[in-house]
Amino acid sequence: MSESTTPEQIQLTADGQLRHFLTTEGLPKALLTEILDTADSFADMSEQQVKKVPLLRGKTVVNLFFEASTRTLSTFELAAKRLSADVLNLNISTSSTKKGETLKDTLMTMHAMHSDMFVVRHSDSGAAHFIASQVTPDVAVINAGDGRHAHPTQAMLDMLTIRRHKGDFAPLRVAIVGDILHSRVARSQIHALRTLGAGEIRVIAPLTLLPRHIESMGVKVYTDMSSGLRDVDVIMMLRLQKERMESALLPSESEFYKLYGLTNDKLAYAHPEAIVMHPGPINRGVEIESAVADGPRSVILNQVTNGIAVRMAVMSMAVSGQQAQRTQNQENDR
Amino acid sequence: MSESTTPEQIQLTADGQLRHFLTTEGLPKALLTEILDTADSFADMSEQQVKKVPLLRGKTVVNLFFEASTRTLSTFELAAKRLSADVLNLNISTSSTKKGETLKDTLMTMHAMHSDMFVVRHSDSGAAHFIASQVTPDVAVINAGDGRHAHPTQAMLDMLTIRRHKGDFAPLRVAIVGDILHSRVARSQIHALRTLGAGEIRVIAPLTLLPRHIESMGVKVYTDMSSGLRDVDVIMMLRLQKERMESALLPSESEFYKLYGLTNDKLAYAHPEAIVMHPGPINRGVEIESAVADGPRSVILNQVTNGIAVRMAVMSMAVSGQQAQRTQNQENDR
Amino acid sequence: MSESTTPEQIQLTADGQLRHFLTTEGLPKALLTEILDTADSFADMSEQQVKKVPLLRGKTVVNLFFEASTRTLSTFELAAKRLSADVLNLNISTSSTKKGETLKDTLMTMHAMHSDMFVVRHSDSGAAHFIASQVTPDVAVINAGDGRHAHPTQAMLDMLTIRRHKGDFAPLRVAIVGDILHSRVARSQIHALRTLGAGEIRVIAPLTLLPRHIESMGVKVYTDMSSGLRDVDVIMMLRLQKERMESALLPSESEFYKLYGLTNDKLAYAHPEAIVMHPGPINRGVEIESAVADGPRSVILNQVTNGIAVRMAVMSMAVSGQQAQRTQNQENDR
Repeated sequence: MSESTTPEQIQLTADGQLRHFLTTEGLPKALLTEILDTADSFADMSEQQVKKVPLLRGKTVVNLFFEASTRTLSTFELAAKRLSADVLNLNISTSSTKKGETLKDTLMTMHAMHSDMFVVRHSDSGAAHFIASQVTPDVAVINAGDGRHAHPTQAMLDMLTIRRHKGDFAPLRVAIVGDILHSRVARSQIHALRTLGAGEIRVIAPLTLLPRHIESMGVKVYTDMSSGLRDVDVIMMLRLQKERMESALLPSESEFYKLYGLTNDKLAYAHPEAIVMHPGPINRGVEIESAVADGPRSVILNQVTNGIAVRMAVMSMAVSGQQAQRTQNQENDR
Repeated sequence: MSESTTPEQIQLTADGQLRHFLTTEGLPKALLTEILDTADSFADMSEQQVKKVPLLRGKTVVNLFFEASTRTLSTFELAAKRLSADVLNLNISTSSTKKGETLKDTLMTMHAMHSDMFVVRHSDSGAAHFIASQVTPDVAVINAGDGRHAHPTQAMLDMLTIRRHKGDFAPLRVAIVGDILHSRVARSQIHALRTLGAGEIRVIAPLTLLPRHIESMGVKVYTDMSSGLRDVDVIMMLRLQKERMESALLPSESEFYKLYGLTNDKLAYAHPEAIVMHPGPINRGVEIESAVADGPRSVILNQVTNGIAVRMAVMSMAVSGQQAQRTQNQENDR
Repeated sequence: MSESTTPEQIQLTADGQLRHFLTTEGLPKALLTEILDTADSFADMSEQQVKKVPLLRGKTVVNLFFEASTRTLSTFELAAKRLSADVLNLNISTSSTKKGETLKDTLMTMHAMHSDMFVVRHSDSGAAHFIASQVTPDVAVINAGDGRHAHPTQAMLDMLTIRRHKGDFAPLRVAIVGDILHSRVARSQIHALRTLGAGEIRVIAPLTLLPRHIESMGVKVYTDMSSGLRDVDVIMMLRLQKERMESALLPSESEFYKLYGLTNDKLAYAHPEAIVMHPGPINRGVEIESAVADGPRSVILNQVTNGIAVRMAVMSMAVSGQQAQRTQNQENDR
């Protein structure tokens, strides 16, 4: 059941359908666009009286959260239920340690229960890919955040939000601001923006919070807001991951806020119709001023709404792709 | 999205339908009777083989419990599932504090996920009303207990239990016994009993557990059981909220039991066909003798059964009312 | 509502249908076979695209876990959902102790909510039987493990696994290996194997982990693996319950592994086509070598798959039996 593949390779079927969603890196533009188009139709549905479709009826979705996150778990749980799936929530940190079960045994056990999908959140980079390699082609795996590596559904809900507000990606200047170094969100955003053809991608951060050679990802680097935000159409703030940060990297929260916190003063550098985004939960007065977070340019709550739609899209696409691959394998075996 | 209204005003639509259920105070008799009639039909249904109706199919109910209560949560979760809703349980105390999200951000996030209903339990009086003011008219809010203020579904399941056993409220003498001072249940019961026209409402408690000016609520005050229980038709015991009580208010549990605990001896003061109620969980040997709690006059388990029916009633009515209001608003906007 | 009966008597209706599943002891062979046949049909269904049947639609299943077990809870939750039941999970240890509610009050409360089934896990032997005696004939009770007494669904999933691999029980030599003394699983397995007519049942353990007079259960006793495993067709390893074991009973884990751990070397004593079973979670390097657990003779993951099917079978049979009994009672009352 093990396959030696990259995350980029394993997530597509032989004929290019999505069957796992592990990273935005390496996925073709047509597929990202298909995710956005599918999500758009679910977003319209969520305005209806009955927000439910039978696409995953009789399927089992298991949320395997090795790292607690009530908010992210809720969005996946809700997305799965609106697709009519049966949902199991497993908080693995508390359950398996007690009896000393290994990760692989836990996976194989859930696999043997004929689960159709694992939604995985884990503090180790690469965990979702490892898990996908263990359960292909029976179970579709969605990465809900792995270490510093990727958070692809967050990136795609951001893309959906940008597209719904701005239309075409080509003419856009986009700035990503904050702790780039520790951010799986930033990595996934940059890959998605490049593939979708965003005109210009900037990162703005203090030198201590920038990965080395970040320019090689195709972004322009700025260390101050006044030049970095100049004329941008989209500002994507990152959450300050206090718990992950080593003390030496940052003088203090208030110093960070003074230099990189998004205030109305700094927002004035951007294009007058720029939109402001944040993955949440917001640290008010650390990354962003309340007047901006709750102001007319903020689309932060639209991101939440779009998050359900994007998760419904990738969940239904991956289950369907995995199923197509199994059918293909069976035909090949004949 | 903020409205400056009283809890009494906000819970009804322009044409008088229920759209939030925050308090029994100020609701018209016709509406309380509609709740009881609707609950009656659900109570009959729960005797059927299939205890499920599609009234909330495709709707999302979020249980926002800022104060833990497994029993109350279970009744709301079950009521929602029997109405075919999708249910999310959020224990906010554990989730949001970790990442320091504000209450308002949590609310707005759940709101943005297109939730249809919040069931709210909170230790602060007025929390449910505050939340309703933030999410009207998109989300219907049910108060599952807020501080010392109100616990309206508990009061209405008590009213349903009384009506199913005694019929008309007009000829009834009802006694509420115990810690009136700290009891949101007592407040909600008194308002409901008055509106429904109960003949006589008494409260029985030591002076230290009586709110000042309680007579202004239209009740007769007694400090001893022998006179207070004389000829009453309904005895509503309160739970002794040990955790909320300051030590100075009460000499000891055994002293309280001796004076106010409902024993068969004290029950003899009441009408021979009096019914005995308690919101649960029971402190046996503190508020009530086991022989009474489990005896022929106890309707405590009927209250539990009726609790599901009442919650199904207010949940379906509030979602429907909120929806009617939105439709009305849209027509007005044209 | 109390009945003075043995677990053997209470679990069948007057005409012999299953209505509780508390123990494999004393159940007739025809009934165990009916469970296996029903489970077989569910096992086939779990290979389908839609793994869901409406057998328990509109029914309420409450998982009453007084002893935490994420894995066992998951299998019951999933089985109930695939039968279309509404499911409530109650972790009683955390909920009721806070407010000091008694076990009986908790039961009567859940009963009053018109639950159809309790799945009970408890550290006290006899707990499931006590609970069944309290709620008959309204609620069907499934024992998910009570103290050292029984774990009947585990035993029946083991029987299903044996039957699907070996067919008839009559010619089989079966060895149960490990901590027999503390194992509810071993007791339930022995009863089921005897009733289903297994040719020879052996137990293999150090003297300190063998109950007195175990021979009276109809098993052959061995204290060493080389003679005990000789020519057996089925090896059922037990989990070493470290947390239950008193220090004096066992020299050390490594000593136990040396003498009783199932390695490929020891497996060579058995029949070449012997299957290897373990209830999980596995303590690798304590009861079993990884090469065996993951090797070609291991059917450990099949056990997990069969566990869902067996649980679906007993859940649907018990609800149906309990319902038949109620109908019968009502006719008798006329």
